[in-house]
Parts: sequence; C-alpha cells; structure tokens
Amino acid sequence: MNLSHIEHLGIAVKSIAESLPYYENILGLKCYSIEEVADQKVKTAFFKIGQTKIELLEPTSDDSAVAKFIEKRGEGIHHIAFAVADGVANALGEMAEKGVKLIDAAPRRGAEGLNIAFLHPKSTCSVLTELCENPNK
Amino acid sequence: MNLSHIEHLGIAVKSIAESLPYYENILGLKCYSIEEVADQKVKTAFFKIGQTKIELLEPTSDDSAVAKFIEKRGEGIHHIAFAVADGVANALGEMAEKGVKLIDAAPRRGAEGLNIAFLHPKSTCSVLTELCENPNK
Repeated sequence: MNLSHIEHLGIAVKSIAESLPYYENILGLKCYSIEEVADQKVKTAFFKIGQTKIELLEPTSDDSAVAKFIEKRGEGIHHIAFAVADGVANALGEMAEKGVKLIDAAPRRGAEGLNIAFLHPKSTCSVLTELCENPNK
Repeated sequence: MNLSHIEHLGIAVKSIAESLPYYENILGLKCYSIEEVADQKVKTAFFKIGQTKIELLEPTSDDSAVAKFIEKRGEGIHHIAFAVADGVANALGEMAEKGVKLIDAAPRRGAEGLNIAFLHPKSTCSVLTELCENPNK
C-alpha cells in the first residue's frame, strides 16, 4: 500500500454557516464547494490548503454519525483521509490480511466522487481513518 | 496572512512504542525522528506523508496538556498546524486585530526548531490550531 498524501481532514461542526467566517475571514481559505452527502447524513463544505482539503461536516439528522460525535465529544477534528496511490480495494485487502478492523469491506462512493473506505478506530490508535482514491485520475 | 499547507497533525497517544506498529507496519510510514519537548511535557514521534508530518504526542507527565486531553477525550487527533508563508508574528498580529483569542501572544520555539504559536480553540471552531514557520528557510 502506498499513501501519497493527506487527501482531507474531516472536521465536525454544528453549523457550516457559523463556521465559514473563521475559515474564510480569519484563515483566509476559500470555500469552493458545498455538497450534501445523503447516505452519511451530512452537509459538507470544502477548502483547499496545499495538497489537502478541509471538509467541514454538518449533520443533517440527529441520527447521523457526525451528530453523535458532536454530542459525545463536541465539535472538532472527526477523521483523517489518506490518498492511496495504488487503489483503495488493494489497500483494504492488505489491511484485512494484517488484522485491521474495517468499517467498509469494499470501496464506496464518497463526497466529490471519490472511492472511499473507512477503517475502524479500534485498529487505528483511535483515529477514525478514511482511505480515498480519485477514480478519474 | 498566507497559509501554504498543513505542516503537521498532532495525534495524542498513550504510548509511542505501542502506536508505532500501526503507523509503520499498517500505514507504511517511516518514523524519522523521536524527540522530547520538555516545556510541553511530551515525547514526539514524526512521520512524513506528502507535504504534511504526523506528530505523535505521548505525555511525559500526568500534568501535561496532552495527558489531560487523553484523560478527557481519549487518544486521537489533538491539533492541526498550518505553515504560515509570511511569518507567525505577522499572523498573530493580524489575528489579534480580528479578535482571535491567542494561547501564545508571540512565537516560541517548538519541536524540530520551528517557530510556533497556538490559537485558542474558542476562536477556531473548537479545533486546537498551531501556526508554524521554519526559521531556517
């Protein structure tokens, strides 16, 4: 498995509208996309900084995983996503062989049309971790 | 203020020795440095992935901020550090003018000889945020 860079960081927020002024006016980043990801029950807002995106995650339902995260831990960094140069499916196979607990046994479609899969925090030193690849590259 | 990239992510762990096998054998990253930062009461381990470093933070004392973070929230992502292209001191001045609450009013020396300063999570949508510059570049 070959991780090339940090594709994005997911940050849980109660409200994208209330968080935007910090990211845009204080940090000077530009929100280039707001997208709803229905199956994860979140609205997302994206910023780019160097190789990495920041993805704000606002829950659209009280039973979304992000709503539960905020309820338990408050707003903050929710997950880290690595770009996999040689394919998410390969990486998942390698990891399963090494005993890593997977949330997604096979890649699925995530925000921005990426193929993604989540690993379980029990196997990743408590950091919710996502693997990504861009199928159009 | 001009943020160029994510310089590093700080991840709080109880034990670097117990976390290394995940980062090295599962993710395939190589730890290139282990360093103690006495004034922050942590031992740090560094990995590089693309433009960004991952910095594992193991508390060396029960009263370190990282020990308190782990006690309250468990292991996990502790802070995000942005590389500032036009100087940390300038950035702090700009931010203070905009009403951002600062932990460090002036840059100080951090791990790897960087000039660093922390912003207060109350002003950063609950994400503990560090600004960095390499004084040798």
